[in-house]
Amino acid sequence: MNRAYPSTLLENAVDELSALPGVGRKTALRLSLYLLRREPEYAERLGTALQALRRDVKYCRTCHNICDTDLCDICADTSRDHSTVCVVENVKDVMTVENTAQFRGLYHVLGGIISPIDGIGPADLEIDSLVKRVAEGEVREVVLALSTTMEGDTTNFFIYRKLSAYPVRVTVIARGVSIGDELEYADEVTLGRSILNRVEFNDAI
Amino acid sequence: MNRAYPSTLLENAVDELSALPGVGRKTALRLSLYLLRREPEYAERLGTALQALRRDVKYCRTCHNICDTDLCDICADTSRDHSTVCVVENVKDVMTVENTAQFRGLYHVLGGIISPIDGIGPADLEIDSLVKRVAEGEVREVVLALSTTMEGDTTNFFIYRKLSAYPVRVTVIARGVSIGDELEYADEVTLGRSILNRVEFNDAI
Repeated sequence: MNRAYPSTLLENAVDELSALPGVGRKTALRLSLYLLRREPEYAERLGTALQALRRDVKYCRTCHNICDTDLCDICADTSRDHSTVCVVENVKDVMTVENTAQFRGLYHVLGGIISPIDGIGPADLEIDSLVKRVAEGEVREVVLALSTTMEGDTTNFFIYRKLSAYPVRVTVIARGVSIGDELEYADEVTLGRSILNRVEFNDAI
Repeated sequence: MNRAYPSTLLENAVDELSALPGVGRKTALRLSLYLLRREPEYAERLGTALQALRRDVKYCRTCHNICDTDLCDICADTSRDHSTVCVVENVKDVMTVENTAQFRGLYHVLGGIISPIDGIGPADLEIDSLVKRVAEGEVREVVLALSTTMEGDTTNFFIYRKLSAYPVRVTVIARGVSIGDELEYADEVTLGRSILNRVEFNDAI
């Protein structure tokens, strides 16, 4: 026997699992053998959950966050501030900002950031729909909350220019020394930005 | 919104994925969001592969290794030595021993080792079927290749006693200093066993 796996079913499962990010063939084998030890219903539930997620997922018609209906819970929530829109890269970032409990406005999920190396241009992102949302007039502030990388900055600038034709305030999340960081370990670009963008002591507490 | 996930489909997928060993909720979320970025066919294939593995897996009627039919490729291979049977704990160990390319006999998969703490007794393992296999007379040597732990030693001893009624040679894989190890880092129990079980220099190369 020169085959790597004793069963083609096992080989298939390992092949498919190892296509996931961070899952190598050893981990895929371990997970597959674990499935064999669990009750049969678990594999059924797992398989169905993954297929249903991909097949039936819906995206909010306004903010493009994923949701169960065609309008997400956040956009449907009338107690939130509909005049402020936070622009984020992906669904995960919506959850991250929500977890801070510091933002009561709505979101706009771009679906990525401009990255010529990865072949992602402005047309691949939900930028036109953001401009359209702003053009409708209800939005008074757009908060840019993208990664503080070259790609994030490029995307920020592109959006800023697109929105310059409209009477909307465009802000960007503060960059500065992380809370809990010792000053000597902060990089100088961040620290420099922290000093330039210093705020009134009264406002910072 | 006080929900942790924006979509119940996403929450289900995260719930089921995080039941896998070594997969926490953060990893499960990352994998779920990855699925959403991949083509829909991938999620279908992945789900089907996992369900098919658990639903349709077969075990060899002789050695209990997993296989596609009711007799595994190894047991069906007439060019292998059918008089030597290597006893291993699980399917993974068959693959591990096969990868050494040093064993041309057959296997017997116990499905675990005796472990009172985990509630696993001899009756939960394929020990009776091993004894039956030996009783049929074709097997002349049983090689015990279990983990070198307390549980492995207990299981080895239990099998040795069960087989003592039959004219079969029972051997155990050599324990000793790993190849590539420096002697000063070998633990003393292993080194002691290495010295006791020393072999003729001519045989070791």
